[in-house]
Amino acid sequence: MTEPGTPTPAPPRPGLTRLEPQTGTGFRMARGDTLTVVDPCGEQVSDFFCFAADDPEEWFSSGRTIDYANSIYPTTGTILYSNRSRPMATIVDDTCGRHDILLTPCSQQTFDLLYPQLEGAAHPSCFENLSRGLAQFGIQPDRISTTFNIFMNVWTDRTGELHIDPPTSRTGDRLTVRAEMDLLVGLTACSAEKSNNGTCKPIDYELHGSA
Amino acid sequence: MTEPGTPTPAPPRPGLTRLEPQTGTGFRMARGDTLTVVDPCGEQVSDFFCFAADDPEEWFSSGRTIDYANSIYPTTGTILYSNRSRPMATIVDDTCGRHDILLTPCSQQTFDLLYPQLEGAAHPSCFENLSRGLAQFGIQPDRISTTFNIFMNVWTDRTGELHIDPPTSRTGDRLTVRAEMDLLVGLTACSAEKSNNGTCKPIDYELHGSA
Repeated sequence: MTEPGTPTPAPPRPGLTRLEPQTGTGFRMARGDTLTVVDPCGEQVSDFFCFAADDPEEWFSSGRTIDYANSIYPTTGTILYSNRSRPMATIVDDTCGRHDILLTPCSQQTFDLLYPQLEGAAHPSCFENLSRGLAQFGIQPDRISTTFNIFMNVWTDRTGELHIDPPTSRTGDRLTVRAEMDLLVGLTACSAEKSNNGTCKPIDYELHGSA
Repeated sequence: MTEPGTPTPAPPRPGLTRLEPQTGTGFRMARGDTLTVVDPCGEQVSDFFCFAADDPEEWFSSGRTIDYANSIYPTTGTILYSNRSRPMATIVDDTCGRHDILLTPCSQQTFDLLYPQLEGAAHPSCFENLSRGLAQFGIQPDRISTTFNIFMNVWTDRTGELHIDPPTSRTGDRLTVRAEMDLLVGLTACSAEKSNNGTCKPIDYELHGSA
């Protein structure tokens, strides 16, 4: 159901696949492939998580990525590292410039704990959508930890308090990662109203083979 | 070997167990038990990680903890959450006030990547010490992700760049956590010179049963 005030997105341009609001998917990437994530309406977050295709005990580590980048803001040139400190992917293009790697994907528990006005009602979530998208590869949801939250606008003040502001992304903003190993990827159009300036919108994406 | 300028710590007071510099350990905590971590010399970090004793597929999640606390600085009252969004432990006392949950434990790869002057030489690390301390419980090292870095002084500037300053902890500063479920715990005296104002010193700790 479209909420009042939700922008009506134009159809995706040829070659792009659309993730409808509050949905997700999973797919393989071969080493060298690129994934471009596009925000078709502006102000919409997309959660990304990945596993090594040849050993799903190796997965994306926000902590290693922050440590080696010496920054909480990934952008062009940032390497996404695994829990084994190996490069999984590199950000090769970024027209937005503000993304998050501090926070976990929204989950039913997120809504239970942080949105008490929902009174525990079932709510779509990135965690559920990532779990579903990656289930085809036998991935256990426990391993889906802190995500790369594309277009999410998080900052901390001097006291360490977090602030989640509307994404700075505008219609057509994009981010591209290149796989540095064969990957199993989960990707969403984020389900948390608060992270997306009040309305959950679609996300478009495109895979390009290196061959 | 004691480096020049390293303070000589007094012996631990009765009841405290000493972790010698650049070492670690592992132990069980029952629900309700408390663990007090003491900095005997000042300016020394201690990395903490934990698993649910009845199912080691459940482990500490810095991302869930940051999300639900809405802060990157854990202190008295902060609940340490698991990857299943369940409370694992609560900080019930903190005389220091500055700790980190952004960064992963130092590992051989940390030294290889961030300390090039070491030219790849073997170096003690919190990751290795946590892995050894938890091996008795059958824990696989891949699951030891971002740690609760007690007394570690990390801050970010407006650009998102990380700064690792000397710990603000002084001799005798302490932090106490209460287990909210039965836990398997790994604990270290951190091995990274840079995080400890140049010299790696001991850490003392004490376990108290709730019975």
